[in-house]
Amino acid sequence: MDSDFGIPRELSPIQQLRSQYQPQLPPCLQGTTVRVELGDGTTVAKAGDAHIIARAFPHTLGQPLAHFLRATAKVPDAQIITEHPAIRVGIVFSGRQAPGGHNVIWGLYEALKVHNAKNILLGFLGGSEGLFAQKTLEITDEVLQTYKNQGGFDLLGRTKDQIRTTEQVNAALKACTDLKLDGLVIIGGVTSNTDAAHLAEFFAEAKCSTKVVGVPVTINGDLKNQFVEANVGFDTICKVNSQLISNVCTDALSAEKYYYFVRLMGRKHSHVALECTLQSHPNMVILGEEVTASKLTIFDITKQICDAVQARAGQDKNHGVILIPEGIVESIPELYALLKEIHGLLKEGVHADNISTQLSPWSSALFEFLPPFIKKQLLLHPESDDSAQLSQIETEKLLAYLVETEMNKRTKDGTYKGKKFNAICHFFGYQARGSLPSKFDSDYAYVLGHICYHILAAGLNGYMATVTNLKSPVNKWKCGAAPMTAMMTVKRWSQNSGSTSIGRPVIHPATVDLKGKAYELLRQNAQKFLMEDMYRNPGPLQYDGPGADAKAVSLCVEDQDYMGRIKKLQGYLDQVRTIVKPGCSQDVLKAALSVMASVTDVLSTISSSSTSGQQFA
Amino acid sequence: MDSDFGIPRELSPIQQLRSQYQPQLPPCLQGTTVRVELGDGTTVAKAGDAHIIARAFPHTLGQPLAHFLRATAKVPDAQIITEHPAIRVGIVFSGRQAPGGHNVIWGLYEALKVHNAKNILLGFLGGSEGLFAQKTLEITDEVLQTYKNQGGFDLLGRTKDQIRTTEQVNAALKACTDLKLDGLVIIGGVTSNTDAAHLAEFFAEAKCSTKVVGVPVTINGDLKNQFVEANVGFDTICKVNSQLISNVCTDALSAEKYYYFVRLMGRKHSHVALECTLQSHPNMVILGEEVTASKLTIFDITKQICDAVQARAGQDKNHGVILIPEGIVESIPELYALLKEIHGLLKEGVHADNISTQLSPWSSALFEFLPPFIKKQLLLHPESDDSAQLSQIETEKLLAYLVETEMNKRTKDGTYKGKKFNAICHFFGYQARGSLPSKFDSDYAYVLGHICYHILAAGLNGYMATVTNLKSPVNKWKCGAAPMTAMMTVKRWSQNSGSTSIGRPVIHPATVDLKGKAYELLRQNAQKFLMEDMYRNPGPLQYDGPGADAKAVSLCVEDQDYMGRIKKLQGYLDQVRTIVKPGCSQDVLKAALSVMASVTDVLSTISSSSTSGQQFA
Repeated sequence: MDSDFGIPRELSPIQQLRSQYQPQLPPCLQGTTVRVELGDGTTVAKAGDAHIIARAFPHTLGQPLAHFLRATAKVPDAQIITEHPAIRVGIVFSGRQAPGGHNVIWGLYEALKVHNAKNILLGFLGGSEGLFAQKTLEITDEVLQTYKNQGGFDLLGRTKDQIRTTEQVNAALKACTDLKLDGLVIIGGVTSNTDAAHLAEFFAEAKCSTKVVGVPVTINGDLKNQFVEANVGFDTICKVNSQLISNVCTDALSAEKYYYFVRLMGRKHSHVALECTLQSHPNMVILGEEVTASKLTIFDITKQICDAVQARAGQDKNHGVILIPEGIVESIPELYALLKEIHGLLKEGVHADNISTQLSPWSSALFEFLPPFIKKQLLLHPESDDSAQLSQIETEKLLAYLVETEMNKRTKDGTYKGKKFNAICHFFGYQARGSLPSKFDSDYAYVLGHICYHILAAGLNGYMATVTNLKSPVNKWKCGAAPMTAMMTVKRWSQNSGSTSIGRPVIHPATVDLKGKAYELLRQNAQKFLMEDMYRNPGPLQYDGPGADAKAVSLCVEDQDYMGRIKKLQGYLDQVRTIVKPGCSQDVLKAALSVMASVTDVLSTISSSSTSGQQFA
Repeated sequence: MDSDFGIPRELSPIQQLRSQYQPQLPPCLQGTTVRVELGDGTTVAKAGDAHIIARAFPHTLGQPLAHFLRATAKVPDAQIITEHPAIRVGIVFSGRQAPGGHNVIWGLYEALKVHNAKNILLGFLGGSEGLFAQKTLEITDEVLQTYKNQGGFDLLGRTKDQIRTTEQVNAALKACTDLKLDGLVIIGGVTSNTDAAHLAEFFAEAKCSTKVVGVPVTINGDLKNQFVEANVGFDTICKVNSQLISNVCTDALSAEKYYYFVRLMGRKHSHVALECTLQSHPNMVILGEEVTASKLTIFDITKQICDAVQARAGQDKNHGVILIPEGIVESIPELYALLKEIHGLLKEGVHADNISTQLSPWSSALFEFLPPFIKKQLLLHPESDDSAQLSQIETEKLLAYLVETEMNKRTKDGTYKGKKFNAICHFFGYQARGSLPSKFDSDYAYVLGHICYHILAAGLNGYMATVTNLKSPVNKWKCGAAPMTAMMTVKRWSQNSGSTSIGRPVIHPATVDLKGKAYELLRQNAQKFLMEDMYRNPGPLQYDGPGADAKAVSLCVEDQDYMGRIKKLQGYLDQVRTIVKPGCSQDVLKAALSVMASVTDVLSTISSSSTSGQQFA
């Protein structure tokens, strides 16, 4: 870890322009009066998980949703916080870097200083390891100067992205106590926010007064649920990648002789690949969720691609662009099984060189069939969250290799008569992750930073900052906070013996919803994308003019604003209560009872059926 | 080749905005009166090559430079062309795609239509193969609509990038004759413009009335000489790559655990890598020209990088970004020798599988030492210009592999005590080549297109369109044309027998000038870049606001405008002639004679010494 964190640096003209950009605040966060409305207590997403989650979170389960309201809002029950004693807050980057992360710090800092000039914000240097070692940098105007609206996590750095072991949580507790922190804000994705939730519970149990707040920041876009519509960084990553993909499409169309296999960063699920496809219209995308749903083998996928190449050759098209999410390797059943076996053997201490001899016959056959470069990559040790080192496994090269082999075979057979198949492989990962954040990510992160303050001012623990109605302009955004325990689910595995093994409650990454509108949009156009080269170039990230205010397609097509709709329902219930007050007519009461009985009936039926199906992974 | 060329297509908001952008014309090209000033006949760059080039170009050698002047310019000798009979012009993409190429077509089309509405512009479909097969598309407003200021070459496509064999030049001659073309405009880099020059000579010899014009369009930036300051596409490529490099730098600085080895497209020479370094300040760049000048072996380079890693680890920095030009593999002496041997054997028909056994002992030792993936890539057949398939040879992985091996060795030895070295490799090529062109490239290409018309209107054959003073705003640009023969040189190889073999006259790619100002700028900062992480993020390509009008650093630091300075000298000579007219005083004449004698003396000495050193490659 070097000692250059937080130093001012020379900015290019665009960086300077961006450093002077001031994101807007939604009306509810303007001014210095915080109004919090606490709703009903939350439930867990799956009723069947309730007792397991309750056991793990005796202090922080069932807390209500929080809505932050504008000063003039007419909500009688809202709590108005006018006293703002000086507080001390710590903030730590605990996930992989994502464009916009710095703005969470800036937003929180601004909110702290607006409410009490004596408030203190300490940044932990070098991520979670800096937290354990109590290495801090006090955030000041000067420190922030050259980091506002800038990419990366380099103001503070990051390291291990884990606050989980007994040793780690104790070190975190000690740091918060020693530094007299009233709040600890943890910036990261699903894993880091899961850690944040467990830490909040641990602090509550230990009667530590530090409140823990999580912020959804991850390029993968997989921290999505009823409360969280989007993650900081996803918008930028998809725009930068879509620009590059469409450049490759233009290149393909100019030279007309190559198939480009482009692997995209994004971890296990295919949110990035889906969004990029909707933005840039490449010929084909293989989503991990489709592979899982249809139980496609690597040979099925190869055949799919080969058939597409052959169909296009029939129209004299010998070029194309195919997107491959990096997580697909874990979606292909037989490859996943192979990876699990390898990881199991690695855990047992078997050396990588000896693993091939200890595999099951089926996995061994598959392993021997694979080309050497991919064998070596599959033998890598898994990541800290037990997943494979997805960024290191060149699935795009494996598929290109298998497709080429099959096309050559078809040529020999005489079943394919087109031109020779030529592939070029690309991995788009690190070159997007460090980008200047888009306007959307700059705004979103800044607002989330402000919300962190309001959560702490309201004395809430174990909450994640949330903004809903994100597809509308900033002045329509709705700000709130949701207990992280309400986002947790539990996985169950069937064991060989017939018994069931139960996982720890965690915030699981969301899969691409194959019934959702974004996927529907893809399916409607997939055939045209495949055959008609409808390549679309969203262009480089702009900060001015057309495109500067563009938002992710998948964000805009979905009916979201879950929290807004929850509020709307509460409004109806309140109205019923007002209309049916003692003194109302018999008829009104009768009508109300009849309708409400029916509503209650329908909802009970639906919600029991949706929770009875247990999830097995 | 598919039949979708030139079809209108759906544009994204930014593409639409750009399609409506109207580049400015410099004053000299405004209006419908063309004024051409022809200077003195040109000489060849190296006096020693003169007789060889003369033999190859009896008709087109020694033609004068042409300057296009504004209607009001007071130049008595300028030829004013007021008659514009209808002409027919063909245009072909004969080089690899480069952002801005479409604007050459648009500029030429506009100029044609402004001067005579009956002028016809035919685009050849599918590059040089379309030329040979006489496949054309008439360029119209409608065809251009969705291609103005857009990337790629997909309006017309490209194929082989070669018009060289007897069969090919005859097919071109037949196409031009059959289609009754007055002009043929060839868009491409050094190779395509060399072909254009030879074709112009061949047409002149064959008394074909079609005039051939070349346009410098190549992302490599290596078509540089006294007359040509920059190439269309280079500015965009460097900006897109610099954005990605600086994103990677930000990523490196956030995670602090990886060294990124980034290979850049750009063919044999290192112009792209130098410019990207000046724009984004990565820690290190290895320029091919430095390697050649210092005769560095692959082991020297490995050691250089390892020493840098070690020095940085001493300052607790365990991350970094290193740029590798793709052409470096041909600059490293022993690798180049190995490649030449392999290509020789491939030419003799030896199968790739058997080559390793037929190499010389030295090359064989090197080959056996290399890791398998690179062996396979070195065995690929060379490109049509006899160079290696640079985009397929993963030099960045080879260097990362060698550095890792050496760092592990140093760790074992105890000479390196830092953290484990981790490398991530990237190749930035195709994802930049298809980009939307920058403002500079859009403007430059559009103006070059206009100049092509003026060259044809002046009846010139074998010329390249040129713009000088490019670092100034468009209204200061100077437009002209230079005979392509004046850009040619001849290479000589010493043979084993002591005799010398002489190459065909060609426009050789320019090397990075190690005495130039751009390289000087790099050298002055190299140590700071290496140790101090002065990463600079030029940001995504902008079309508005700061950065939109930025130009390449290497363009701006050099004193260029060679053609402007030639004109300035001619001005002095004219002034002397005016002052020293018959009737002037004895003293004036005496002074003039004395000074001119001395000037002539000095110049003779300098120019004979600069041509006596023959170039051996």
